[in-house]
Amino acid sequence: QINSERLWNTLHQTCEWGATHRYGENPTETGMARLTLNDDDARVRQWFAGEVQKLGCSLSIDQMGNMFAKQAGRLGSPAPMIAMGSHLDTQPRGGRYDGILGVMAALEVLRTMKENGFQTNFDVGVVNWTNEEGARFPKSMCSSGVWAGAIPIQKAWDLRDIHDSSVTLRSELERHGYLGDIACSSDPATGYPLGAHFELHIEQGPILPENNRSIGVVRGAQGYRWLTMTVHGKDAHTGTTPFSARQDPLLASSRMIAASHDIAKKHDALASTGIIKVPSNASTNTVSSQVTFTLDIRHPQDSVVYAVQDECLKAFEAIASQDGKGVSFDWTLDTDSPAVKFDDDCVASIQAAADKLVGREQSMLMTSGAGHDTVYTSQHCPSAMIFVPCRDGVSHHPTEYCSPQDCALGTQALLEAVVHYDQS
Amino acid sequence: QINSERLWNTLHQTCEWGATHRYGENPTETGMARLTLNDDDARVRQWFAGEVQKLGCSLSIDQMGNMFAKQAGRLGSPAPMIAMGSHLDTQPRGGRYDGILGVMAALEVLRTMKENGFQTNFDVGVVNWTNEEGARFPKSMCSSGVWAGAIPIQKAWDLRDIHDSSVTLRSELERHGYLGDIACSSDPATGYPLGAHFELHIEQGPILPENNRSIGVVRGAQGYRWLTMTVHGKDAHTGTTPFSARQDPLLASSRMIAASHDIAKKHDALASTGIIKVPSNASTNTVSSQVTFTLDIRHPQDSVVYAVQDECLKAFEAIASQDGKGVSFDWTLDTDSPAVKFDDDCVASIQAAADKLVGREQSMLMTSGAGHDTVYTSQHCPSAMIFVPCRDGVSHHPTEYCSPQDCALGTQALLEAVVHYDQS
Ligand SMILES: NC(=O)NCCC(=O)O
Ligand SMILES: NC(=O)NCCC(=O)O
Repeated sequence: QINSERLWNTLHQTCEWGATHRYGENPTETGMARLTLNDDDARVRQWFAGEVQKLGCSLSIDQMGNMFAKQAGRLGSPAPMIAMGSHLDTQPRGGRYDGILGVMAALEVLRTMKENGFQTNFDVGVVNWTNEEGARFPKSMCSSGVWAGAIPIQKAWDLRDIHDSSVTLRSELERHGYLGDIACSSDPATGYPLGAHFELHIEQGPILPENNRSIGVVRGAQGYRWLTMTVHGKDAHTGTTPFSARQDPLLASSRMIAASHDIAKKHDALASTGIIKVPSNASTNTVSSQVTFTLDIRHPQDSVVYAVQDECLKAFEAIASQDGKGVSFDWTLDTDSPAVKFDDDCVASIQAAADKLVGREQSMLMTSGAGHDTVYTSQHCPSAMIFVPCRDGVSHHPTEYCSPQDCALGTQALLEAVVHYDQS
Repeated sequence: QINSERLWNTLHQTCEWGATHRYGENPTETGMARLTLNDDDARVRQWFAGEVQKLGCSLSIDQMGNMFAKQAGRLGSPAPMIAMGSHLDTQPRGGRYDGILGVMAALEVLRTMKENGFQTNFDVGVVNWTNEEGARFPKSMCSSGVWAGAIPIQKAWDLRDIHDSSVTLRSELERHGYLGDIACSSDPATGYPLGAHFELHIEQGPILPENNRSIGVVRGAQGYRWLTMTVHGKDAHTGTTPFSARQDPLLASSRMIAASHDIAKKHDALASTGIIKVPSNASTNTVSSQVTFTLDIRHPQDSVVYAVQDECLKAFEAIASQDGKGVSFDWTLDTDSPAVKFDDDCVASIQAAADKLVGREQSMLMTSGAGHDTVYTSQHCPSAMIFVPCRDGVSHHPTEYCSPQDCALGTQALLEAVVHYDQS
């Protein structure tokens, strides 16, 4: 039985490193800005290293600063450890639970085992993955991506602080002493292989609360593709240029954004535009000659992601030739994250834990809408995730909130799932 | 008969003050950046003052730096002068003709009269209106607006350089010695009243070239209203938030922009969005909580401008409640410029000039799509405008171009119209 109070207190005490964006009176009513490898991130890392060592764990750090804490199992080490992993970095206007809960829960699981003299068969441990958010060094799930061989380490090392291009991820690893000597890889010869990877995370969406469920058994993650569209037209005076003489890229972009939504809806998929930009010299009485906007397409099946993309591009062609003499457009693919199916045994262990703790009516099988470190680990070891509800589905925001009860329930589920997996 | 070569050479020589944005080999193939009361504007003003004084004009400068050059008529001064006016300031990425042609043409008219020993009955003269563009100090047709009593002088004086808030329009008037002592007003007691105002200007649109006409007889200007819409929704993760749980202001804005176009089209009016903005912390995988966009609605009849606005706002309400739980919006009115009908006698004088020079088939009665200084002068003296074609309707752009033939023809028409008006 995990200690719910200790979990809650530990989580909020360590959030003193990086707390900001106060939104209420209560001491814990702040958000977080603990950006990867800033001084607060270094402080919480140092604290984390101390705590796992107190528990008797052996700590390894790889060349991306990923921290692996290992508790020995009963059988010696016949196989790589069963890991519970997540991340301690946050968004610049982030909250206290995204990532942080997963690491604190894993620590609480180890503390509970130690305190009860409980030993797993195989080694178990915790991973703190570096730069999951990609907020300071712009590549999300960065170091689990390097570990999985999906991102070249040089590319990751060379990432620059988005506000200070003189600082790289590698220079910050060096500054804080987190450029370890183990390869960032799942290769047993040079790197740090894992036997399994379990991640507890807040849902970051409204599905659990809307369905009144307290545990999400996450069996995979949806695929997504990020496109940046650039639409070209012609500068024109809004007062003197008849519609028939215009090539208006903002009007075309508006119709494209609306069309992408309608197409995605038809396919039960998602298509979203987060950013739209006109040139900085735009003015109220000038039709801009260029507009760029992002398009984020998602669905649990890659074939549907592609179908939505293709239908959107066809619709965009049609829109570009409407309204006057026609605009043109081109696009780049910024991120391509195929759909992932998690490991059946890991999912079964989580389902077993959920059944025991809350029953089938209170849990739900689901697909992660967002990317997580587990999406990368699942390429190299059996992996799955546990979701707990967060208030109103809000995350990446100071008011992000997960109740003490839900934090505790998720942590207990994590413990039970790991024990179940270890024993089967 | 005006001297076409002198006109062309004078125009391009004076464009050396502020020339930039080269786009071709030819010495005149550059744009202009002669922003109101910058050093280049001060140089061309000084040159202008010298030229009109050489012609024997009396020069007056009012408290907005408007420059009035007066050539005495045969009858003494029984009435205020018949003015030919426009502006010498440009957009930051402007061209060599917008405004500049009108002032250079007026000067050429005076030179032609002088050279031919021709004297009008009444006083005639030239006005260089300060800050027509509103590009540096953000208020367009600024000083004709003050002259007409539509803009309080203190408000105009307090306008700040959009790139350097320590500089005001008044401080720049003082720095260059253009804070005159005459009131900026049409009041005969304190200000500088005008007997009439004629303005030659490039069309800034494609109507003349598309209809193969060389002179536009401008009988009025359409009304316009500039709105800034702010659409409010809710931050949400694009991967984890189902459409049904979103309040997506960018999707709503897109539908609004498309709807405003369709509504305007139905009314044979114009509705245009030049600027759209999401918060600077927007990201590809976040639905923004707020979007702002501009809406510029125009039609020659104010009632239609209002009808389009009302229909847009109704459509926006409907759109705001679509797609999930609904967004909200509010708006501000930034500019309200009612439709203007120019003076019948002034228009008749221009029509007479056009008939004589090119005939009815080569000229066309039209309504100005854009605002001009003449829109303000028409509130206090008989006024009208002459349009000449500019290449592809392009203006506010370095490649803005009006052929030597069209510059000359417009200038000749200006001379004939003023003489016709003076005599009738
Ligand atoms: N959890 C999360 O926000 N991941 C970032 C990548 C994504 O947008 O899915
Ligand atoms: N001529 C011109 O661009 N005037 C500015 C105001 C308008 O957009 O009509």
